[in-house]
Amino acid sequence: MPTLPLPPGSTIGILGGGQLGRMLALAAARLGFDVAVLERDADSPAGRVAARTIVAAYDDDAALADLVSVAQVITYEFENVPAASVLKLEAMGAVVAPGPDALSVAQDRVAEKQFLNASGAPTVAFASADSADEAVAAAQEMGAPLLMKTRREGYDGKGQRWVEHVADAAATFEALGGVPVILEAPAEYVRELSIIAARGRDGATAVYPLAENHHEHGVLRRSLAPAQVSAETALQAEKIALRVLDGLNYVGVIGIELFEMKDGQLLVNEIAPRVHNSGHWTQDGCEVDQFEQHIRAVAGWPLGPTAARARVEMLNLLGDEVETWAKLAHEPETRIHLYGKRAAKTGRKMGHVNKVKPL
Amino acid sequence: MPTLPLPPGSTIGILGGGQLGRMLALAAARLGFDVAVLERDADSPAGRVAARTIVAAYDDDAALADLVSVAQVITYEFENVPAASVLKLEAMGAVVAPGPDALSVAQDRVAEKQFLNASGAPTVAFASADSADEAVAAAQEMGAPLLMKTRREGYDGKGQRWVEHVADAAATFEALGGVPVILEAPAEYVRELSIIAARGRDGATAVYPLAENHHEHGVLRRSLAPAQVSAETALQAEKIALRVLDGLNYVGVIGIELFEMKDGQLLVNEIAPRVHNSGHWTQDGCEVDQFEQHIRAVAGWPLGPTAARARVEMLNLLGDEVETWAKLAHEPETRIHLYGKRAAKTGRKMGHVNKVKPL
Repeated sequence: MPTLPLPPGSTIGILGGGQLGRMLALAAARLGFDVAVLERDADSPAGRVAARTIVAAYDDDAALADLVSVAQVITYEFENVPAASVLKLEAMGAVVAPGPDALSVAQDRVAEKQFLNASGAPTVAFASADSADEAVAAAQEMGAPLLMKTRREGYDGKGQRWVEHVADAAATFEALGGVPVILEAPAEYVRELSIIAARGRDGATAVYPLAENHHEHGVLRRSLAPAQVSAETALQAEKIALRVLDGLNYVGVIGIELFEMKDGQLLVNEIAPRVHNSGHWTQDGCEVDQFEQHIRAVAGWPLGPTAARARVEMLNLLGDEVETWAKLAHEPETRIHLYGKRAAKTGRKMGHVNKVKPL
Repeated sequence: MPTLPLPPGSTIGILGGGQLGRMLALAAARLGFDVAVLERDADSPAGRVAARTIVAAYDDDAALADLVSVAQVITYEFENVPAASVLKLEAMGAVVAPGPDALSVAQDRVAEKQFLNASGAPTVAFASADSADEAVAAAQEMGAPLLMKTRREGYDGKGQRWVEHVADAAATFEALGGVPVILEAPAEYVRELSIIAARGRDGATAVYPLAENHHEHGVLRRSLAPAQVSAETALQAEKIALRVLDGLNYVGVIGIELFEMKDGQLLVNEIAPRVHNSGHWTQDGCEVDQFEQHIRAVAGWPLGPTAARARVEMLNLLGDEVETWAKLAHEPETRIHLYGKRAAKTGRKMGHVNKVKPL
């Protein structure tokens, strides 16, 4: 077991080589850590700023052993890392954060909603179905329209479809691949909000101000932070965050997506056991951003301050929007964050900008 | 010749793998660039956050050719890179910034002071001496005490000695290695200030607010920024900076060390054609810090804003002071920047902290 708090000069392992891994690696470097990335692609955004890349699949035992031999603490940039890999890393003596509880809850939309409700964090009504017949029965019980999602995998709007009529439930089940699904009642929300929160190894917690999020085709397009919310709403969100963090005995940064209902109630849409796109505004809006905060937490360091020092409009650069960099570079209020991805495929997150204004 | 402004996804080469190279590399990565470091040490602070390290001496022709083959724009982290190497890089078609003019002036303390005075940037009185006899003659002419420095090399107080009595001049010349020297009249300054400035490829310039610097044993210990100076003093410093930048047809960030005299006049102590320790406060005190500014300039991007958004006290962590990291991590106002150096030798710059306060 490593000495905690983890001393600078130690190596932090990151499963995943995308933009979140890259920004985590940059934050870790600032604190004097080395980073080792485990990633299938030898030329990844995170790998190119890390001290080393182990090129392998997440379930490659030899690669996991390699990672444990160099890294004293290991984290991951996204929640679809195999839970079995995390368990193997732990069995080999590595400290992994967030832990397997958070991962198993976040990987199964049914387990996630069950956990949330049991923790006192409300969600929409939902049902699970493992077969077309079960899907039909659930749809009859709940009524249409409803949203059908695969229980596992899927992100940025992938792996989900609307069921407009109860009669379509079986066909939708098959269209989603005939795998176990969750059926969710529609949320008639007025706004999408999110809260980025952190919990240290000592159980201390910290929450950032809320962000207001705007999606397009299931992908985050724009976040405004701090969101203009009432003190009550902010308190409600903080309570939810603390219940989730404590309920999972969580270590690290978590992103919690919320629906704000007409009556002011907040429902949890989903949780992401990692740094989150709607928290990118913290890079230019807070003294300690979500990336450094995550590194601090997993390394057993005390959490840093989370107050906003500026108002930020975060805009994702999707696909060929990244080609506007030269224009963006001329805007004095615009901070540019690009991910070094080689191909600007349609809809792909290539970077983001934070437009910074005084509070 | 590369396309300028240099598009994200291009590679920026950095000569030197220390902390300045590391922080330049982190800033370049944020803007979507890859970084290639040329450095003798295979395990350097900058190399560990760069996409690739070319392990070689700065005068290794094959390594320089390698660097040109991968990097579209090349810069350096310190001014003692051989000017011949920069000329070779340029001859191979690379764009190098800052250019050879800046380097040759910065590498020779006599050429530096001649350039400064010719540009209307005042300095202390000085003389050059290539032999012990010349040193004695110059000392007799100038009177003691005076400061004798090697014309070339030397930084952080190395390569310089006080001559307390004219009779000591010959012995001091020999003690400095019998190499060409500069003799400088003492500056009876009330404060040491510095100004960090930048010039883009289009000739646009930007200056940061001044810093007030405190040295110990020739090494920077502490900077306070923005320094409390009169509008006149700020204007005087800006004028000096612009004269220096334009006089060198400079591209990139420059650090200019100033003596503030009792009558308010500013004398230039020295110029560093690179990012500068007294500009580290900009990381947490400005929207665009000196590292991103340098990358923007050398990549042909427009310069970013330089206004202060906070007051900062920058403290260097020298030698085993870096061991206080765990205590520093508890201070909410303290931003930690560590360099990943393996050995905390006495006096070695291991990191710095920026203590941030409202303006």
